[in-house]
Amino acid sequence: MTNSPSRLEKLYYRIEAQHACLAWAFERIGGQPGIIFELGLGLGRTFDHLRRYLPDREIYVFDRQIDSYPECTPDPRQMILGDLSETLPKAAVRFAGSVILANSDVGSFSREHNSAVSGIVSADLGPALADGALILSDLPLSVPGTIRLPLPPGAREDCYYIYRFRRTGL
Amino acid sequence: MTNSPSRLEKLYYRIEAQHACLAWAFERIGGQPGIIFELGLGLGRTFDHLRRYLPDREIYVFDRQIDSYPECTPDPRQMILGDLSETLPKAAVRFAGSVILANSDVGSFSREHNSAVSGIVSADLGPALADGALILSDLPLSVPGTIRLPLPPGAREDCYYIYRFRRTGL
Repeated sequence: MTNSPSRLEKLYYRIEAQHACLAWAFERIGGQPGIIFELGLGLGRTFDHLRRYLPDREIYVFDRQIDSYPECTPDPRQMILGDLSETLPKAAVRFAGSVILANSDVGSFSREHNSAVSGIVSADLGPALADGALILSDLPLSVPGTIRLPLPPGAREDCYYIYRFRRTGL
Repeated sequence: MTNSPSRLEKLYYRIEAQHACLAWAFERIGGQPGIIFELGLGLGRTFDHLRRYLPDREIYVFDRQIDSYPECTPDPRQMILGDLSETLPKAAVRFAGSVILANSDVGSFSREHNSAVSGIVSADLGPALADGALILSDLPLSVPGTIRLPLPPGAREDCYYIYRFRRTGL
């Protein structure tokens, strides 16, 4: 036996929490206009989930390159390819104030990578967000104007993170 | 909305079921001698899980090559590298009758691959198994001498499979 979770459990708890957070967020954003940002395409599993549960939303997916399952690959018009430190600031201008839900799933097992990418998202996502937008993330973030929310039932503590954005001065 | 699960849900339900089945199996094999077969190393997550929960068991891991996280990579003496159609029959002779738990996690999204690999495991694993051995699998198997068992609580139906082996003539 062991105190820390195994690699299998880390994946399990993260996916379980992500699934619960997404289900919670899908309900919360219902009736509010806005587009979706998915940071990190990976194999395309979460993109597939988003397009099934949010069929009427515009979804934009960010990644360095496309390594997804062929049937989980976004339309080229939905893909924003390149280094997040370059693509995210530009996209935040292009889609200023229109993102109602951002799912950031860009962590790895490298602390250096996680710290760097969490810094990029924290610094550059803000201008894209609509008032009331939700950010779900596999890493802790500090986007100005956001507060951290408790996780919904079914998500283990610290396995995923939820933030709500309020535009100041509104 | 959609009727069929998304790719994210397919992964989630499979990991959830695998985790529940492994926890169930760890209890069941307690006190019974025998070694462990892990068919499919992948990133090494399940191997990491097995070695944490079964620290006193010999574990042998089968795969074509090593693509695991460095810290989840088995000792070379625990790895049996090569095509399963060649390595499994040999290992079944080498470890005849001594495997108390086999976890077979070798499926993909290719039906042809799944059908082929499920046929190999079904045909070649049997001689390795101890009387009363449990087989957990992400694919349906038909190993002679086994019966399929119901899944434990927490595992969704048909997301994983459990079989118990009884040596005939005992």
